[in-house]
Amino acid sequence: MAGNIFGKHFTINTFGESHGDSIGVVIDGCPAGLSIDLAYIQQQLDKRKPGQSNITTQRKESDTVNVLSGVFEGKSLGTPICLTIKNEDARPEDYSEIKSTYRPSHADYTWEQKYGLRDYRGGGRSSARETAARVAAGTIAQLLLKQYGVSITAYVSQVGRLKLEKPYQQLDLNNTETNIVRCPDPEMAAQMIALIEDTKAKGDSLGGVVSCVVQGCPVGLGEPVFDKLPADLAKAMLSINAVKGFEIGSGFDGVELYGSEHNDVFDTDADGKIITTTNHSGGTQGGISNGMDIYFNVAFKPTATIMKEQQTVNTDGANTTLKAKGRHDPCVVPRAVPIVEAMAALVLADHLLRNRLSRL
Amino acid sequence: MAGNIFGKHFTINTFGESHGDSIGVVIDGCPAGLSIDLAYIQQQLDKRKPGQSNITTQRKESDTVNVLSGVFEGKSLGTPICLTIKNEDARPEDYSEIKSTYRPSHADYTWEQKYGLRDYRGGGRSSARETAARVAAGTIAQLLLKQYGVSITAYVSQVGRLKLEKPYQQLDLNNTETNIVRCPDPEMAAQMIALIEDTKAKGDSLGGVVSCVVQGCPVGLGEPVFDKLPADLAKAMLSINAVKGFEIGSGFDGVELYGSEHNDVFDTDADGKIITTTNHSGGTQGGISNGMDIYFNVAFKPTATIMKEQQTVNTDGANTTLKAKGRHDPCVVPRAVPIVEAMAALVLADHLLRNRLSRL
Amino acid sequence: MAGNIFGKHFTINTFGESHGDSIGVVIDGCPAGLSIDLAYIQQQLDKRKPGQSNITTQRKESDTVNVLSGVFEGKSLGTPICLTIKNEDARPEDYSEIKSTYRPSHADYTWEQKYGLRDYRGGGRSSARETAARVAAGTIAQLLLKQYGVSITAYVSQVGRLKLEKPYQQLDLNNTETNIVRCPDPEMAAQMIALIEDTKAKGDSLGGVVSCVVQGCPVGLGEPVFDKLPADLAKAMLSINAVKGFEIGSGFDGVELYGSEHNDVFDTDADGKIITTTNHSGGTQGGISNGMDIYFNVAFKPTATIMKEQQTVNTDGANTTLKAKGRHDPCVVPRAVPIVEAMAALVLADHLLRNRLSRL
Amino acid sequence: MAGNIFGKHFTINTFGESHGDSIGVVIDGCPAGLSIDLAYIQQQLDKRKPGQSNITTQRKESDTVNVLSGVFEGKSLGTPICLTIKNEDARPEDYSEIKSTYRPSHADYTWEQKYGLRDYRGGGRSSARETAARVAAGTIAQLLLKQYGVSITAYVSQVGRLKLEKPYQQLDLNNTETNIVRCPDPEMAAQMIALIEDTKAKGDSLGGVVSCVVQGCPVGLGEPVFDKLPADLAKAMLSINAVKGFEIGSGFDGVELYGSEHNDVFDTDADGKIITTTNHSGGTQGGISNGMDIYFNVAFKPTATIMKEQQTVNTDGANTTLKAKGRHDPCVVPRAVPIVEAMAALVLADHLLRNRLSRL
Repeated sequence: MAGNIFGKHFTINTFGESHGDSIGVVIDGCPAGLSIDLAYIQQQLDKRKPGQSNITTQRKESDTVNVLSGVFEGKSLGTPICLTIKNEDARPEDYSEIKSTYRPSHADYTWEQKYGLRDYRGGGRSSARETAARVAAGTIAQLLLKQYGVSITAYVSQVGRLKLEKPYQQLDLNNTETNIVRCPDPEMAAQMIALIEDTKAKGDSLGGVVSCVVQGCPVGLGEPVFDKLPADLAKAMLSINAVKGFEIGSGFDGVELYGSEHNDVFDTDADGKIITTTNHSGGTQGGISNGMDIYFNVAFKPTATIMKEQQTVNTDGANTTLKAKGRHDPCVVPRAVPIVEAMAALVLADHLLRNRLSRL
Repeated sequence: MAGNIFGKHFTINTFGESHGDSIGVVIDGCPAGLSIDLAYIQQQLDKRKPGQSNITTQRKESDTVNVLSGVFEGKSLGTPICLTIKNEDARPEDYSEIKSTYRPSHADYTWEQKYGLRDYRGGGRSSARETAARVAAGTIAQLLLKQYGVSITAYVSQVGRLKLEKPYQQLDLNNTETNIVRCPDPEMAAQMIALIEDTKAKGDSLGGVVSCVVQGCPVGLGEPVFDKLPADLAKAMLSINAVKGFEIGSGFDGVELYGSEHNDVFDTDADGKIITTTNHSGGTQGGISNGMDIYFNVAFKPTATIMKEQQTVNTDGANTTLKAKGRHDPCVVPRAVPIVEAMAALVLADHLLRNRLSRL
Repeated sequence: MAGNIFGKHFTINTFGESHGDSIGVVIDGCPAGLSIDLAYIQQQLDKRKPGQSNITTQRKESDTVNVLSGVFEGKSLGTPICLTIKNEDARPEDYSEIKSTYRPSHADYTWEQKYGLRDYRGGGRSSARETAARVAAGTIAQLLLKQYGVSITAYVSQVGRLKLEKPYQQLDLNNTETNIVRCPDPEMAAQMIALIEDTKAKGDSLGGVVSCVVQGCPVGLGEPVFDKLPADLAKAMLSINAVKGFEIGSGFDGVELYGSEHNDVFDTDADGKIITTTNHSGGTQGGISNGMDIYFNVAFKPTATIMKEQQTVNTDGANTTLKAKGRHDPCVVPRAVPIVEAMAALVLADHLLRNRLSRL
Repeated sequence: MAGNIFGKHFTINTFGESHGDSIGVVIDGCPAGLSIDLAYIQQQLDKRKPGQSNITTQRKESDTVNVLSGVFEGKSLGTPICLTIKNEDARPEDYSEIKSTYRPSHADYTWEQKYGLRDYRGGGRSSARETAARVAAGTIAQLLLKQYGVSITAYVSQVGRLKLEKPYQQLDLNNTETNIVRCPDPEMAAQMIALIEDTKAKGDSLGGVVSCVVQGCPVGLGEPVFDKLPADLAKAMLSINAVKGFEIGSGFDGVELYGSEHNDVFDTDADGKIITTTNHSGGTQGGISNGMDIYFNVAFKPTATIMKEQQTVNTDGANTTLKAKGRHDPCVVPRAVPIVEAMAALVLADHLLRNRLSRL
């Protein structure tokens, strides 16, 4: 009810403030017997961690994951898995000014209004640092999904006005990790990096889009009526800091097609398996996966923290100005890639398990 | 877990198939003492009901709501409110063909794969007829919200390629109900109606966008981290049949702005109340309402049922063709307006109540 | 959150007031493909219905169940099953006095304090009439459990001071339905009936105990740590009107044994199956079923409504007296037997399904 | 769904195995602004910790609590509070034998059947060590309740056949902490201690009863229909290791009274407040608190671990014998007192908050 638990069976309960002792997560509902590959968890965390390149924040965190429970002799016990990550490079002194001043387009004002007090150090729990816990948990969801042949791959498809128009089928997604912006098109990647560097130099920030593809998803995942797979994916994505939009399959562009153009007609493949010849639906029909690729886009607004002086008010409601100190990402999408993958994995793992209950 | 319950405190549990005895809903968690205005519920249902104009399906349903429980002497008791609506104009014979054939871009195939059986009459529970129960329940949520000064207004902003470019502030939303397509711009409305009539005549269908504005929302609604207000709105909208996208505030377009352009700086109004001078955030920051208008767009794909012959497969996996019979909407957005309002109201009512628990 | 939903996957959402239009239930999470035997549902409802004998209330209700959704061609669809029962013999005029007077040991006072208003007609939703909806739903849970070889049998083991000392193994539970008090020992049954008749004649009421045995339960049901099978059974039983106690296995008497007496040592049966040679544990260890019989006792207080004048206060807080009108059970346990069975079935069905998720 | 989360708004998610790295808990839904008194938490943990006297297990654990999140400048933030406790005196070598042998009346067999594997070291997560996390969390619930004038006091009322017949009103509960068995009657306490010492010397174990009194509870806590206060208390208690029974108010003995004896008639006190002249109901009517004291009993079976050779089977299903090594309590009730208080506090804190939502 207080909104720090996500999922219905495979649930995560995250905790931690940006500059507190630790952040972490308790995963409940992970089935027993899953091999827990710690190196893989760390690898995904490293994709999200700060300081990984010159286009991300320079905060230095090793983001080393500790396993407090739920794993025995390398396997999940079926009991809660608690993972923690220490906050190491906390610099609360950077935040003394925002103790009494609300940063524009940040959560300072709304949190203080809601709770009557707030941990102002780095945004406290409103910081995107919380998403490290999601990545750690999502990686375990990915390990579970791999057992069932499901893979999830996200990449950056837009930074500011630089938009990759090609659909994922025309890209080599193996290229995603070859550059620091995580765009699978090398040429576009270079442009995006240049744009981010330029914008950073100006003290400004950029928005972007992360696209995600799920392959190998079995037919039948997703629960009518409210827990449709696209509905739960949408919630998962909009729960990520800075996200303002979600679209699946044909999305907003699909609105412009006629039904006769948009419908995905059924056919059978060489093995007699039922497929659709197009996939405007984005892999789900009636909210349930149909065995085709699931693909969706997630829109991130430009980072709210900029190195320019901005008008604002203080906690007394008086006008003032503020210019950011601290360490921040000029554009969040490169580090958002593993977060989008993690949240997608959490949704799919939950539905994979829940689908075991649909029939007698 | 089976996905027919929505909300965490103010919950709805809908039930019913398109051609079964009834559809309906149980509302749990409505506070005691709310005046239940049945005429208002019926009025909202009438906006959604079939047969309301020549651009909607011709199925004839009075959609009269029955109150089985939870209301006594005109007021909510604090106990579950059960509302039912009889299915009157069921024509199961129209659906004999789809008993053994999967309609393209419908839920026939995925439901049968998931459950091993399905009620093929009008799509059974996958039919958008289920949303009548949501509208009935959402209207009670709207009655609750009105007590706190919150109003919700949705309208059609796009049909096919006809897009209303003006933001809601430049529209007179009182015009929405003056035309059958529910577009507040009379000129655009006329064009949209003509396009729908033309497309219907060709046996084809159209997509569209419904926009929604929430005004008067108090500061503090929405729960971090996962139950952010935009996250719950996104889920609510993507749970509506045919929805493929959601964006709040600046949405996908906001990606193209710089942070210095996008940030909503704080100021105080004449009464000393803290406001933002722009509202790219769409009324929420850090997932919590900030007192500004909440606005968002919902993308609907073109209706899957078209009056043209389409390729498909039957339940044995053999290739065949199908041409729709039955009664269908050439474009769903006019009837989707009250559904979007209802789902938004359910999210907001839930969060309005949950917010009572944030402080000591 | 408002407490009208029970279960985590196989959930029921009951609704309805004693003298409103109807009572009913929505069952969500029933797997698809279950044959729904309406005659069996009605048979269980008939065991609970008022007016069935001279030792129960004389309110006349046919308690005919209506299926509004979720069943198609005799089978569950996997969608919500809504069952309703009309209130037929409502006599609100019997309750005019309690509109302004609180009945001792009833819920009138607490409900009015909690909600600010109440449906005083027959106790509104605090009436045990609500349990008819539980029985209807529980019967569907029993149909599911039968598919897996699980049977549930409850009986009356105590009325007032008349206590059946024999354990269930020494009773012929087939005798339970041969007498109106539902005690499987014919001699004790006759004494109980005489006691109830005598007490009724005096305008007084009695308490009692219902015992319940679950046979054929597979190993593995129950979730640590909080959702232990005994914990969920305890909650289920204490949620029934008038229940004041629950004990499983050796229960309160087991406290007096030494560990060396109480421990259930393991052995194997002729088929090599692991069993325990005694069953003080009552079929669960560590909260999880171990394959032995599950048995427990449920204590019901004497009916609060008595035909004697009692001191009380009115809604203004002034002292007054009250003597019951209306139609009431002098002892609730005979009619509580199917309610205990239903609630046990709901717990077990939920855990049977949830247990599918424990392993990879 | 996997049963490691308790509560609906004020929720706890416990984690940890007996001999793993740590045990702990995430509390979600604690309102912001509560002063968190760490010394009080530690004091309650010390009542539960092992090695506190010669009648408890000799395992040595400091049970020092660490706060990882949710508290800032001494106050709750409204964000999840994560508390951890290191396992210090783990001796996994004591458990090598039970790796392949099932201890009678323990959870070894059922857990292995359910999950396919288990952490055999000290029972893994089935160990009562998990309850330390509940005590830590429950203490925060008690801090919250204190703000509203609610106090919770538990004590030992029975050990083996030694039963304190006096009701709580005739006891001085301040004596509870004056002796190591936590019985408020000094004479009975001495007898209980002697019995436990004698039984321990014989290598055997004892059961017992913990009684609990809640004073100062406001009217209105508890949610109909399923989440009645007694129902949630019953579940809470039966979720504690070794508990076999629960009774509230008159409980099982109340069955023997006539309604005219059992009913709690209403009156007003000197201040005009509505009270009942007796309290057989145990402080709740219709599942909702009525402002009178809430009192209940919890039955604990004799400790399963005994220092005598017992028959059992090994993991291959072959007969064998087992004699416990390791460190164990000859009777759990002295250490169960703070656990019962903690679980009661968690239920009441949850309902205290939920009750804010009952009215407009």
